[in-house]
Amino acid sequence: VSEIRAIPVEGLPELEPGDPLGELIAGAAGLEAGDVVAVAQKAVSKVEARIRRLDEVEPTARARQLATELDKDPALVQLILDESTSLIRAERGVLIAETRGGWICANAGIDSSNVPGERAVTLLPEDADASARRLREEIHGAAEVSPAVIVSDSFGRPWRLGQAEVAIGCAGLDPLDDWSGRRDRLGGELFSTAPAIADQIAGMADLARDKASGVPAVIVRGLARFVTAQDGPGAAALRRPRGDDLFR
Amino acid sequence: VSEIRAIPVEGLPELEPGDPLGELIAGAAGLEAGDVVAVAQKAVSKVEARIRRLDEVEPTARARQLATELDKDPALVQLILDESTSLIRAERGVLIAETRGGWICANAGIDSSNVPGERAVTLLPEDADASARRLREEIHGAAEVSPAVIVSDSFGRPWRLGQAEVAIGCAGLDPLDDWSGRRDRLGGELFSTAPAIADQIAGMADLARDKASGVPAVIVRGLARFVTAQDGPGAAALRRPRGDDLFR
Repeated sequence: VSEIRAIPVEGLPELEPGDPLGELIAGAAGLEAGDVVAVAQKAVSKVEARIRRLDEVEPTARARQLATELDKDPALVQLILDESTSLIRAERGVLIAETRGGWICANAGIDSSNVPGERAVTLLPEDADASARRLREEIHGAAEVSPAVIVSDSFGRPWRLGQAEVAIGCAGLDPLDDWSGRRDRLGGELFSTAPAIADQIAGMADLARDKASGVPAVIVRGLARFVTAQDGPGAAALRRPRGDDLFR
Repeated sequence: VSEIRAIPVEGLPELEPGDPLGELIAGAAGLEAGDVVAVAQKAVSKVEARIRRLDEVEPTARARQLATELDKDPALVQLILDESTSLIRAERGVLIAETRGGWICANAGIDSSNVPGERAVTLLPEDADASARRLREEIHGAAEVSPAVIVSDSFGRPWRLGQAEVAIGCAGLDPLDDWSGRRDRLGGELFSTAPAIADQIAGMADLARDKASGVPAVIVRGLARFVTAQDGPGAAALRRPRGDDLFR
């Protein structure tokens, strides 16, 4: 238990497909062992060329109908359907989908803010845990340290207004600090205590930038106890299994 | 955009009903203008005497039946019913309720870990926004600065495993950073961007303690842009109105 810090990584260029994002971060930040590097989904999607132009999408009849019902752009609805395995809610102008990667969020994570190009949008990385592993390897190659890496995006939540940044990918981090079986300081058992460490780090990193600043990465320092030598289970470990979920 | 820090407040005594928590925090922490003080719900509940002993609760027939169905303690179920206005889910051993304060969470926020006394539990503060305002005033009286105050608890989430710390009360803070109408750095409009600042600060503070450490408060420094002179709308502003919620 001691101080923790979130330090924005500044001075990165506007990112293009194929850019070596891990190397760029390693060059711009003074990384230390035990750091966590939280990288915004949008930056990862850009370098992974997960960008689409709505004008180049041909909506199917189903997408056109859903778009009419929800008052949304048919091309956007088509991309959402393409990126999803199922729709959780489609009403009142809101489309909440389970993505092919297993995340449940509005619009399958497709986003149009801060994407250069006429009617351009980003899709989520195809496998953000794999993205995090690649970034970690790239950073290790360039900086001789092996920080944990989180790829994060902001999701809305049932019951609460506003968005919270969550981890959609990670490598080298215990995403869940599972206390079951351990005891509290009075000796009582902590049955279901398991803070979602990766999500809370993502939220902390989000506070260190702002939505207009274009800072794609934030270093979080002081949480070395959650950083692991192995890449570990990734953010996949944060997906609640369908059979254990009361809200789909 | 610059560095932010979370600093645990150490050296507080085991708290008792009536203890001047704000004064104790002010005495133990070197507070600065623009700080946010995140206080754990359990600490607030203890000083507000929101503690019950399960042995002293007389369960009604309804509580006993629900307890049998869910394999829970009948006295605990009675307290959950007493603290709730409605049940959102009651199945598979899980009881998710809307509390009288308007929060939706497991067991109406009733918790038994780190509560001294045989079969003792804490209830949520009756009005955690009022708790935050009182703590802010107490701190101001003792320390001559007027930090923002958050009262936080850890809630489970649909779809994602683990808990995230969220704000159930706040004072002197913009809980939601609403960007609607503002523009991204490429000139695009940010329609529904509104990070839940208070929740993300709560999560950040949670990372700076651990579940066994007994640290009841954490100072978050570097977010003065969200700290306000007025107490403001409180965490009530984070409650999604029922008519706008697709999950109840």
